[in-house]
Amino acid sequence: MPQGQPSTVPDDGLTTRQRRNQPVLAVHTGPGKGKSTAAFGLALRGWNQGWPIGVFQFVKSAKWKVGEERALRVLGASGEGGPVTWHKMGEGWSWVQRDLESSEEAAREGWEQVKRDLAAETYRLYVLDEFTYPMHWGWVDTEEVVSVLRDRPGAQHVVITGRYAPQALLDAADLVTEMTKVKHPMDAGRKGQRGIEW
Amino acid sequence: MPQGQPSTVPDDGLTTRQRRNQPVLAVHTGPGKGKSTAAFGLALRGWNQGWPIGVFQFVKSAKWKVGEERALRVLGASGEGGPVTWHKMGEGWSWVQRDLESSEEAAREGWEQVKRDLAAETYRLYVLDEFTYPMHWGWVDTEEVVSVLRDRPGAQHVVITGRYAPQALLDAADLVTEMTKVKHPMDAGRKGQRGIEW
Repeated sequence: MPQGQPSTVPDDGLTTRQRRNQPVLAVHTGPGKGKSTAAFGLALRGWNQGWPIGVFQFVKSAKWKVGEERALRVLGASGEGGPVTWHKMGEGWSWVQRDLESSEEAAREGWEQVKRDLAAETYRLYVLDEFTYPMHWGWVDTEEVVSVLRDRPGAQHVVITGRYAPQALLDAADLVTEMTKVKHPMDAGRKGQRGIEW
Repeated sequence: MPQGQPSTVPDDGLTTRQRRNQPVLAVHTGPGKGKSTAAFGLALRGWNQGWPIGVFQFVKSAKWKVGEERALRVLGASGEGGPVTWHKMGEGWSWVQRDLESSEEAAREGWEQVKRDLAAETYRLYVLDEFTYPMHWGWVDTEEVVSVLRDRPGAQHVVITGRYAPQALLDAADLVTEMTKVKHPMDAGRKGQRGIEW
């Protein structure tokens, strides 16, 4: 597709180059397919730019992202693009040395680590996969998330996926895409398919 | 997310395993972001399954998919998952030895190659990126596309991306996701950003 032209030029005193490097907060939400898949696709672009990428999987369903995880691990280790660090809640966060008592505690611990990494500017791109659910369920405070993301230093891009994205998060986001389910094989009685669903 | 249960079990005489291996035709359409990105994310899953993957880019805009292309080429050459073959119209189709006179001719030639590959079962997953446009513009006959896809042999999965997907294609698809633009940085006067848009 041709490169889009913005309909207005903001009166923010920034050059196009500066605007091009502004950090982006993207949210992929809605009931359709492709929210996480598109986020991992974005990670391919970041990898190609040589960016350090941090993936945080906030819901225990490791099976469902096994293809993306292996692909990004192979890419991160290839020495060609940026490094990739993959954290998943299902097997305990990689930095946690003790057993966490509940999913709620695990989600909170994950968010604490994201905060530490944002403060330290550990990564250039964060994929916070299914992070809307801990917010939706009230395990993590949405206002705090919005505030931390708003004040994050540097040019750190963040992509958050999942249904039920809180309105305050959508308001704070630069880019929101809703994936709408138009038709799905399960409607016709099919179960998840290897290579397609995971 | 937990694995979904189909709401009905079809009376088709197939086992769950057989249904799991049925070929899928997926369409990612709509005005929002993530149509191609999610298709390339699906390719990561196919790669992880060891599937031969064929990517056909039907619109000349190589710059926009450079990250995905490099990532999938590195993955395909890693020897870990399946092989990846990448064809793009912008630089001439890789199998065409002569200059094509127009984009229309190039799109038709691309579709002819897809037909040959489907007949030969060359790949297990086909990403026909932005292939809706040649159909929308009338360069490639939608009825023929639907017919060829309906009758394709084996268990070849096909993902087609782009806006303006013809209704007949949607009707024939097993999985349709519409990406809706809720909010985009260009609305706020930002131009495309490195690592995010390409």
